[in-house]
Amino acid sequence: MIYFDNAATSMPKPHAVISAMSEAFKSCGNSGRSGHKYALTAAQTVYECRKKLAMMFNTRPECVIFTASATEALNIAIKGTNRIGGVTLVSSMEHNSVMRPINTLRKNGETVLRQFLVDVNSDDITCDNFSSVSRSATNVVITHASNVCGRILPIKKFRSLLSDDVVFILDASQTAGHIAIDIVELGVDIMCIPAHKGLFGPMGVGALIINPYSDVIIEPLIEGGTGTNSKTFEMPENYPEKLEAGTLNVCGIAGLSAALDDVEFNDKEMDLFKYLVMSLNDMVDIILYGTPVKNNWNDYVPVLLFNKKGFDCETLCELLAEKGFALRAGFHCAPNAHMTLGTYEIGGVRLSLSKKNNRREIDRFLNVLDSIKA
Amino acid sequence: MIYFDNAATSMPKPHAVISAMSEAFKSCGNSGRSGHKYALTAAQTVYECRKKLAMMFNTRPECVIFTASATEALNIAIKGTNRIGGVTLVSSMEHNSVMRPINTLRKNGETVLRQFLVDVNSDDITCDNFSSVSRSATNVVITHASNVCGRILPIKKFRSLLSDDVVFILDASQTAGHIAIDIVELGVDIMCIPAHKGLFGPMGVGALIINPYSDVIIEPLIEGGTGTNSKTFEMPENYPEKLEAGTLNVCGIAGLSAALDDVEFNDKEMDLFKYLVMSLNDMVDIILYGTPVKNNWNDYVPVLLFNKKGFDCETLCELLAEKGFALRAGFHCAPNAHMTLGTYEIGGVRLSLSKKNNRREIDRFLNVLDSIKA
Repeated sequence: MIYFDNAATSMPKPHAVISAMSEAFKSCGNSGRSGHKYALTAAQTVYECRKKLAMMFNTRPECVIFTASATEALNIAIKGTNRIGGVTLVSSMEHNSVMRPINTLRKNGETVLRQFLVDVNSDDITCDNFSSVSRSATNVVITHASNVCGRILPIKKFRSLLSDDVVFILDASQTAGHIAIDIVELGVDIMCIPAHKGLFGPMGVGALIINPYSDVIIEPLIEGGTGTNSKTFEMPENYPEKLEAGTLNVCGIAGLSAALDDVEFNDKEMDLFKYLVMSLNDMVDIILYGTPVKNNWNDYVPVLLFNKKGFDCETLCELLAEKGFALRAGFHCAPNAHMTLGTYEIGGVRLSLSKKNNRREIDRFLNVLDSIKA
Repeated sequence: MIYFDNAATSMPKPHAVISAMSEAFKSCGNSGRSGHKYALTAAQTVYECRKKLAMMFNTRPECVIFTASATEALNIAIKGTNRIGGVTLVSSMEHNSVMRPINTLRKNGETVLRQFLVDVNSDDITCDNFSSVSRSATNVVITHASNVCGRILPIKKFRSLLSDDVVFILDASQTAGHIAIDIVELGVDIMCIPAHKGLFGPMGVGALIINPYSDVIIEPLIEGGTGTNSKTFEMPENYPEKLEAGTLNVCGIAGLSAALDDVEFNDKEMDLFKYLVMSLNDMVDIILYGTPVKNNWNDYVPVLLFNKKGFDCETLCELLAEKGFALRAGFHCAPNAHMTLGTYEIGGVRLSLSKKNNRREIDRFLNVLDSIKA
């Protein structure tokens, strides 16, 4: 099986990740819950990972909050910063992990929802669209890169167009591990990441990362034991404890910690992506949506959406699976992105690369894709 | 190190658990997110565990909701069933994973909070206390067994004292895996469990389990992609999808699934507990809190709280750790339980057994505990 579904979860993960999980499984108790060796080893394992993530994204360890997923991190960020009477602004490329929580706030009258249209061919037009609705925004929640077409959005420009008191939440689900991210340089208040995509950690871990210079106040979504301040029924005021109730996924965090040692940013996956896009461009019965024009490869992570003439996307994806290729068809939990790209009615097949893919796999894929006839 | 901190997390876990996690790590993609082999293997792995939990607790597979922890499950259950204008009733033995979310609802004017006093020596008195405040209750959240002293509460009797429309949430964090639980027989609407305590699964997984005959409506706390109904910004109406947004912890669930094969209910850990309690009872400088009287061993899971004259609990616990025993001192995230037991000012040392402990370990502990002098 050749794996091209890395935007769902990356595969194969490095062996070091499961080794670290296995080690933690044997040596770790419940982090922060006692002073014996197993509890301390767990606390140290968790702290090591916190430090590495802090270093990777340029913040302080206590600004790294472990969650069960990027989805949970986004729910905490969105619901925990929402103030009644506010206006939440999103792009037209958001995933349901952003749209569904905000839609609930909207339905309950707890926020007004505004949306700006992304033009995948022009950051200038996108920024104009952003500016036309951003004036009244109190909260902004934007994907760093589309999970459907890989387009990176101009986050720094967006930030420069907003006043300082606007809370800016970045959904970095598709960028973390693919491109270097400096939360201070981007100027966002909070970014949310999964462990199991570009970072090659396990499923079951995510993080909410706070800009060390931000004074954003995040109310907890999940409350419970923290191993600290036991006698009060309020969550502690300090991070990370304020947002980390209950037992942490110590094995998963140990796995992520090992995965982080393996992260490096180079041109390999984007070189493959260029080759793939250019090859697909040359195939007359393939339609690509939102892929680079004008050689703006730096505006992308290696995710693309396509269809083949004469096939509906689900059928094509099933045929490809039968022939040994793992991709994902449909709407990818991001209907507005498909609306933006013109595929809201028909959906599409998504192909998402990682650093573990190679040219031979892409050549085999191109051959097989070409050979499938209606 | 002799491990007596199983109420925090059980150790050592069976090797089959990490083997299953390792296997899932290699063979599983993102569950429910595509139709290729890796995604299907993940979906099947998750479903197997769902079926096993359903069978264990007597419900249907779709009534098993995977969460990151019992704490998360309790937050979903408590916040997702709360209706403004209601009255929430709790026992005096609740953990902060129950008290903190309810306290937030109370502060926001979204519920009234009532509490009844548990008498660890008499279910009759406890039930009288329950009845004296239960009349106006709309929601009841009660621990199945105290995480501080192991006392099991008379859940079935409580249920019989309530009208059918009261939502009953059971915190089974300390009972799941220790005693057989039939959700239908108990008559509770929802029970919340961790994977990593009595069930010997990994940290990072919990479950919210719904009574198949209950018509309780639970609103989602965390919303996002479900791999289904992608085009709507509402969570799907059906369980488990309604309450399972984002990528599941597939490896962790695979680990829990393996752990469930190992669960059996026998007298072993309670025989050890009896021996331990009776031995400690004979030691003149040991004070026990809330342990069995009148041979009512069936009213307990193997958790006990003690102090030693002349020592504060933290110091004693540190001394025991130095001598190779893992226990936990302090307030155990359950201040009201300590209030109930009379240890709110001084705390105590908790000793919690599992089926992996043995008589030799207890004898060594008793010797060492006796040898520690002020």
